Amino acid sequence: MEHYLASEFDRQQATRRAPAYQHLRRALQHAIENGELPAGQALPGERELGKQLALSRVTVRKAIAGLVADGLVVQRQGAGNFVAERIVKSFSRLTSFTDDLRARGLDPRSHFLERGVGEVTPEEAMALNLSPGAQVLRYYRLRTAGEQALALERTVVPQSVLADPSLIENSLYEAFAAQGIRPARALQRLRAIAFDAEQARLLQLPEGSPGLFIERRTFLEDGRVVEFTRSFYRGDAYDFVAELHSEPTA
Amino acid sequence: MEHYLASEFDRQQATRRAPAYQHLRRALQHAIENGELPAGQALPGERELGKQLALSRVTVRKAIAGLVADGLVVQRQGAGNFVAERIVKSFSRLTSFTDDLRARGLDPRSHFLERGVGEVTPEEAMALNLSPGAQVLRYYRLRTAGEQALALERTVVPQSVLADPSLIENSLYEAFAAQGIRPARALQRLRAIAFDAEQARLLQLPEGSPGLFIERRTFLEDGRVVEFTRSFYRGDAYDFVAELHSEPTA
Repeated sequence: MEHYLASEFDRQQATRRAPAYQHLRRALQHAIENGELPAGQALPGERELGKQLALSRVTVRKAIAGLVADGLVVQRQGAGNFVAERIVKSFSRLTSFTDDLRARGLDPRSHFLERGVGEVTPEEAMALNLSPGAQVLRYYRLRTAGEQALALERTVVPQSVLADPSLIENSLYEAFAAQGIRPARALQRLRAIAFDAEQARLLQLPEGSPGLFIERRTFLEDGRVVEFTRSFYRGDAYDFVAELHSEPTA
Repeated sequence: MEHYLASEFDRQQATRRAPAYQHLRRALQHAIENGELPAGQALPGERELGKQLALSRVTVRKAIAGLVADGLVVQRQGAGNFVAERIVKSFSRLTSFTDDLRARGLDPRSHFLERGVGEVTPEEAMALNLSPGAQVLRYYRLRTAGEQALALERTVVPQSVLADPSLIENSLYEAFAAQGIRPARALQRLRAIAFDAEQARLLQLPEGSPGLFIERRTFLEDGRVVEFTRSFYRGDAYDFVAELHSEPTA
């Protein structure tokens, strides 16, 4: 490992000239991050870009493939390449999927893939602080903005909290509000994953595309757990932001 | 899209019997998440697992490949499959890479791929609130726990904050502390990405593996920006956790 690192260091030092596709990739990345290429804007065609910069089409494609992998550019079949429109979600404030999208003028929808009532599993009982035998509502939803698939979400709610699965029409938090239930806080855990074939198909992405897996347990002021949700967000659609604070010094 | 969703709903309702590899995958996932299979433990061999459960080796492999894609299992060449040891990092408290690993009894190291001084780029100037022409220190580091590659990190620090690039030996936050510099808060942005060929090579992963891209700007109490860091964390090594709170009601 040490030898490998030493030679890598030498290589990086010696080859300040990165390959052409890396230069183009970085130039486009900077233009996107600085707002010169705003969200939703079409990129110049691959052929045109190659001509302008005297680069081969293979080089241009490689650069754009890198930006697609980073989620900065989306490819629309037949229409070309566009700067990705990303949804920025807080990882410190408790907000609902529906409110996040409405705040951006988008049209949030829930498509129910599964919906039912059943006996709590041992894992769900742990997450929801329920006793064995308790009944829970289960939802598996595809969340979209208009026709655009954004996330898959599996939610479990104690039946003692919501009596009937049909109470959720679109938004869990709207159903909570209608019942006078006010979530106070949530614990979240997040990691990067690669979508499996089934998830990729539902999200209309290539298998293995990057995504965010987020597990959420939501609490009332009195400590009761009202929600256990496992979400899979498209990596090319979402940014999570947070403000971090240093530990108070003694 | 509506037709596709309707047929998907029917399919999911009708086929409550998922394929065998999905059953095995979920069973293993539950065992890992419930702690029955603790971090670091070896999974039974593929052949043995297939025999026990009367499943084909292809089925077992497919189930395990899914767990590897989710970052729950790591494959070590020649040694077999192991439950991944994940590092849990707070997304609400400002902590250093070095402290996170030391707290777990691990051995954090920095391998410098690039290190130097230069004039600030327009993008860096924006991030660090610097004027054009200002000088900055730049570091590109491979962060490891012992021999295990965990993250790639590009850090930019104003030279007005740290005078000499050699002041950072391993940890930026240790260098800050030695100079009496106390970061108070940071803004972070996180998204899922797929590692490109270069990053994957440095992290010793297959190209396209999932990772987390995190951008951090760190501030002093007086509002000065002391750090602009872009990190690429292995998706199979890190979980980020946070506590979320509801908006104060008026």
